[in-house]
Amino acid sequence: MNLSKAYQEALESALEDFYQDKSPQNLYKPIQYLMDLGGKRIRPFLTLMTGEAYGVSAKDAMGGAMAVEVFHNFTLMHDDIMDKARLRRGRTTVHEKWDVNTAILSGDAMLIKAYQFLETYPNDIFKQLTSLLSKTAIEVCEGQQYDMDFETRPNTSKEEYIEMIRLKTAVLVGCALQIGAIIGGASEEDQQAIYDFGIQLGLAFQLQDDYLDTFGDQDTFGKKIGGDILEDKKTILYHLALKTANESQRETLQSLLGGNIQMDEEEKIRKVKDLFEATEIDSDCRDLIQHHSHLADIELEKLTISEYQKSRFKDLKDWLMHRTF
Amino acid sequence: MNLSKAYQEALESALEDFYQDKSPQNLYKPIQYLMDLGGKRIRPFLTLMTGEAYGVSAKDAMGGAMAVEVFHNFTLMHDDIMDKARLRRGRTTVHEKWDVNTAILSGDAMLIKAYQFLETYPNDIFKQLTSLLSKTAIEVCEGQQYDMDFETRPNTSKEEYIEMIRLKTAVLVGCALQIGAIIGGASEEDQQAIYDFGIQLGLAFQLQDDYLDTFGDQDTFGKKIGGDILEDKKTILYHLALKTANESQRETLQSLLGGNIQMDEEEKIRKVKDLFEATEIDSDCRDLIQHHSHLADIELEKLTISEYQKSRFKDLKDWLMHRTF
Repeated sequence: MNLSKAYQEALESALEDFYQDKSPQNLYKPIQYLMDLGGKRIRPFLTLMTGEAYGVSAKDAMGGAMAVEVFHNFTLMHDDIMDKARLRRGRTTVHEKWDVNTAILSGDAMLIKAYQFLETYPNDIFKQLTSLLSKTAIEVCEGQQYDMDFETRPNTSKEEYIEMIRLKTAVLVGCALQIGAIIGGASEEDQQAIYDFGIQLGLAFQLQDDYLDTFGDQDTFGKKIGGDILEDKKTILYHLALKTANESQRETLQSLLGGNIQMDEEEKIRKVKDLFEATEIDSDCRDLIQHHSHLADIELEKLTISEYQKSRFKDLKDWLMHRTF
Repeated sequence: MNLSKAYQEALESALEDFYQDKSPQNLYKPIQYLMDLGGKRIRPFLTLMTGEAYGVSAKDAMGGAMAVEVFHNFTLMHDDIMDKARLRRGRTTVHEKWDVNTAILSGDAMLIKAYQFLETYPNDIFKQLTSLLSKTAIEVCEGQQYDMDFETRPNTSKEEYIEMIRLKTAVLVGCALQIGAIIGGASEEDQQAIYDFGIQLGLAFQLQDDYLDTFGDQDTFGKKIGGDILEDKKTILYHLALKTANESQRETLQSLLGGNIQMDEEEKIRKVKDLFEATEIDSDCRDLIQHHSHLADIELEKLTISEYQKSRFKDLKDWLMHRTF
């Protein structure tokens, strides 16, 4: 499955309109630069697809789709500053190409622009969409804060980790879907189910990303295998391993990812991977991903849309979940 | 005139509710810290006062007032990072007390929270308020960008400078007033007039701030006299002086504020002030302030509220304009 070409073209065309003749250029050029780096446009696609499932054209759902995509890119702009990331999609990040001040202010403008894209909708829809965007946006900020907190907190639980990725990643997937459902006039029950489908899909996707970072195939994963290990990230693999590790393995793992290890990169990746394999957590992790994927299916079944429309969401989920295996 | 005690108490009480039990603390504590530094709460006061002029209680206008105040503090949090400011109201800034990442993320959360405060209003009012907040917020970002651009652009005009302070400062004053008018059900004509009153008041106030920074009295001004000169700021005094200066004076002024001068602080202030006096711009500047103050009066006259209510806005303006003389 490929993201529908018609949707892609409609999105890129809406983005082109968004960039037209904006002044001051030092505020708007960095926005265009970041958004033109591309990315998969998965979130706005989810909005358009859900709108269509409830009978709304891509044109009519575009305001919601653009709000989601511009909001998502706002989070990338500010997260890249916080993470001191030098590259985004293989290109120089905004705060490196311009400076931190530019990335802060242009990011702020993107957050505001995300809200403005919703102004095309009538009062009642506008309020529902705006309230959902705000709730989601605050949760994403909270998730980012937990993520930063966890870097320096040694004893976070697996449950806290999953709650963090729910906030940082999954709620925006749920939001993108629910926005399409709201625009399409879906019932509250359907809105809740498609949102919850998004939460479970978002969790499954992020957990799989964690898994593939160690156990994936370099040729298809798209990022460097072992990248999380090199950054000492306490991903789901770490949390699962701590549960089954014996005392010696636990100490070794905590020391390897403790932030103070001087070691050859490939050696560090191999040692951590060896520990993950010794604690036999790779199948635990696949089970957990499957669990959330299954919960997503259950939510899909609740929807009052046709079986054909349900199958499109199912295909999308399968495509996303197999994309990087 | 003092800001009404009842309004002050209602505002501080609303702020207390806002701070309750928020998690993660590292996201919300810096917000409380910044907002507890106080400040004059002029903008939310303007909202409550305008609401009252159109028959709405402080309680019913509080959502709008809080949105304005939280938004204003968001701009302070991010501007302080960009300006590398170490102090805000005599206390350590958030990015110095915590770090830049905290100030970025907590600021983002404040911008979102500002929108959420508007959710107490019904659909039609909500959309009007939210659209006005977004328009204003984008303009404030644009104003901040122009301000930063002008630091490195040698030849900006007086007109460009006034447009910059309109965006950076005046539009939020207009917005605060119009929000009160919208909540109070004012006509579109009244909304426009109170907004334009705010623009002129905001311009007059900022121009006066520029004037007092050089010509004010240290005991009543509240900031260090000459602070703008030490920061090489091209304020309205600079732009007016360039217009009447002869070639030698112009070169001296541009060199003194050119960013590369090594000189005793008090000597630099004295030399620039001497030039401002030699070019006889202090009366030009007072005339300009008076001009915008007069334009504000004209807008007030257009309002369909009682003469008593108009006199309250007039008193407020006089209080603000005399506050620091």
